[in-house]
Amino acid sequence: MPILKSVNSLRTILKKENPSSVIIVSSKAVIEKLNWAIKEMGLSRFNIIEIPDGEAAKEWPEAEKIIKKFTDYNLDRNGLVIALGGGTVGDVVGFVASIYLRGVKYVQIPTTLLAQVDSAHGGKTAVDFLGYKNQVGTFYLPIATIIDSRFMKSLPEEQIINGLGEIIKSGLIKDSSILSLLKNETVSGLSESKKLESIIEKTIKAKQYYVNKDYKDIGVRQILNFGHTLGHSIELKYGVGHGRAVIMGMLQELKIAEKLKLTPPSVRDCLETTLESLGIKIDDQMKAEYESILHDKKVDGGQIFLPVISKVGKSRLVKLNIHKIKTIMPTLVS
Amino acid sequence: MPILKSVNSLRTILKKENPSSVIIVSSKAVIEKLNWAIKEMGLSRFNIIEIPDGEAAKEWPEAEKIIKKFTDYNLDRNGLVIALGGGTVGDVVGFVASIYLRGVKYVQIPTTLLAQVDSAHGGKTAVDFLGYKNQVGTFYLPIATIIDSRFMKSLPEEQIINGLGEIIKSGLIKDSSILSLLKNETVSGLSESKKLESIIEKTIKAKQYYVNKDYKDIGVRQILNFGHTLGHSIELKYGVGHGRAVIMGMLQELKIAEKLKLTPPSVRDCLETTLESLGIKIDDQMKAEYESILHDKKVDGGQIFLPVISKVGKSRLVKLNIHKIKTIMPTLVS
Repeated sequence: MPILKSVNSLRTILKKENPSSVIIVSSKAVIEKLNWAIKEMGLSRFNIIEIPDGEAAKEWPEAEKIIKKFTDYNLDRNGLVIALGGGTVGDVVGFVASIYLRGVKYVQIPTTLLAQVDSAHGGKTAVDFLGYKNQVGTFYLPIATIIDSRFMKSLPEEQIINGLGEIIKSGLIKDSSILSLLKNETVSGLSESKKLESIIEKTIKAKQYYVNKDYKDIGVRQILNFGHTLGHSIELKYGVGHGRAVIMGMLQELKIAEKLKLTPPSVRDCLETTLESLGIKIDDQMKAEYESILHDKKVDGGQIFLPVISKVGKSRLVKLNIHKIKTIMPTLVS
Repeated sequence: MPILKSVNSLRTILKKENPSSVIIVSSKAVIEKLNWAIKEMGLSRFNIIEIPDGEAAKEWPEAEKIIKKFTDYNLDRNGLVIALGGGTVGDVVGFVASIYLRGVKYVQIPTTLLAQVDSAHGGKTAVDFLGYKNQVGTFYLPIATIIDSRFMKSLPEEQIINGLGEIIKSGLIKDSSILSLLKNETVSGLSESKKLESIIEKTIKAKQYYVNKDYKDIGVRQILNFGHTLGHSIELKYGVGHGRAVIMGMLQELKIAEKLKLTPPSVRDCLETTLESLGIKIDDQMKAEYESILHDKKVDGGQIFLPVISKVGKSRLVKLNIHKIKTIMPTLVS
């Protein structure tokens, strides 16, 4: 699955695929702001399906509405679907593309930093079902993913931090050169930085490394969950953004691993230095709930697989008894 | 994906998989009639989800209801789903198993002859959407398929004919020994025949041959559609059973191929002899609609791939201009 660098390159895809019809699925906010991108695709005829902004787009009834519109527009097996938007757009469009007529071709054009470095890659599609997040989904790859850095220019800072959570994570678990590139960068300056393209590329490469080894996420791919087990708990409890939650999750998971003598303190030092130089201030009073860990998919028979960093850029999965974590949890927030 | 011969062998699967929970999905009629099979599975704890009988089970809202129940029963990634029933049960259960938590393990236990020889194999799952048949689905394989010949004992004759359509088709396209085995058999006697198991096995093997070569059904697997392009049209227009429709479809597709000098008349002779000795009488006044062929998924840019039998047990796909077929259609029904 090729990764292309400009919306312009969709023309090459269209020439090669010669689809019977093209449908763009996007959210209201994206369509208003990024109309230039749709123009640049060079489509002579296409339909647009507008879905809600944000997490609302990922509800099961929304997926149903999209399928209804695919049917209304007579989308057939030779058609092409384009997902233009952030992670929620990519998740739900990937899902409907994977089940409509047992799968039609689609292209991912992620427009947020988080989607560009993380959710648009690896083939996981998802919708929420009756309030359960990602309860339904498939593994289904787009025929191409377009990472256009021009989308980054208009992103608010909180969106940049959402992406930075995953970028920093990739530096810690797999590729320390990502952290070197972040030196001298700031949250507010990153979207204009000359290094951004290279940072995004390396982050995608780190993710692909694990995805290629374990596409169905039953083994080593779970290292990508570093910071997320505790992070999701914080995200739900305090309603902070995904990026900040993952950063806090990483800090607290590192503390746990330190107490178990699995990680040297130098890793957390490195993370804290990175956060400071980027200008990300973290509230260290937000505490993950032990109970929420119990419901985590990575818990099996009282055991949890915790991603553990042995040194910056090097990690492995360690099987732990969850009760060991229970005794450490209260000491995490000083 | 192993094919096992008795419901009893589910015990072996349970021992190996040690699932966190087991859910049987079946239809009302099947549960009432085949309770012995559920008992024989040797499950200590399980839940049953009852879905409607027949095609009604395949509607999208039914799939939604099953997912809701999976959620209510806390089915997790280590759970096991069992599809017990005919083709519609297998299609919809395969679909929900493939999308719930991005895929949970499931076992197919087909209880009709048609499902045993055809729909339970090859990984195609499907639901109907707003009246469009199989509009939504996935490719997803069960961890095992159980073909228990005891289910055949209680089948009505029309159900036997539904299976025979696919059995005869497999004999014509791939394995002429299937037709030899059908000699001296009758529709009414087949369910008790000692040869039935062998006939079913060979038919599955013929299907698997094409599935293994072209799992995603973009090439040679379409030979399995022999008789179905015209057959579906007849099925819709006259409301006859699937088996009879496919048989009529085969007869008429053979006539077309004969007129185009692609098939010798001996193939149709063989089919007619087989039908006669089985005691299947076919109404030769039912005529497929040319227009319905145009909407067939196998039509692409005015061309159609027609499965063509060069001699009994040997076939290939031939690309034809659909207009050639148009001129022949009126001559099919004498």
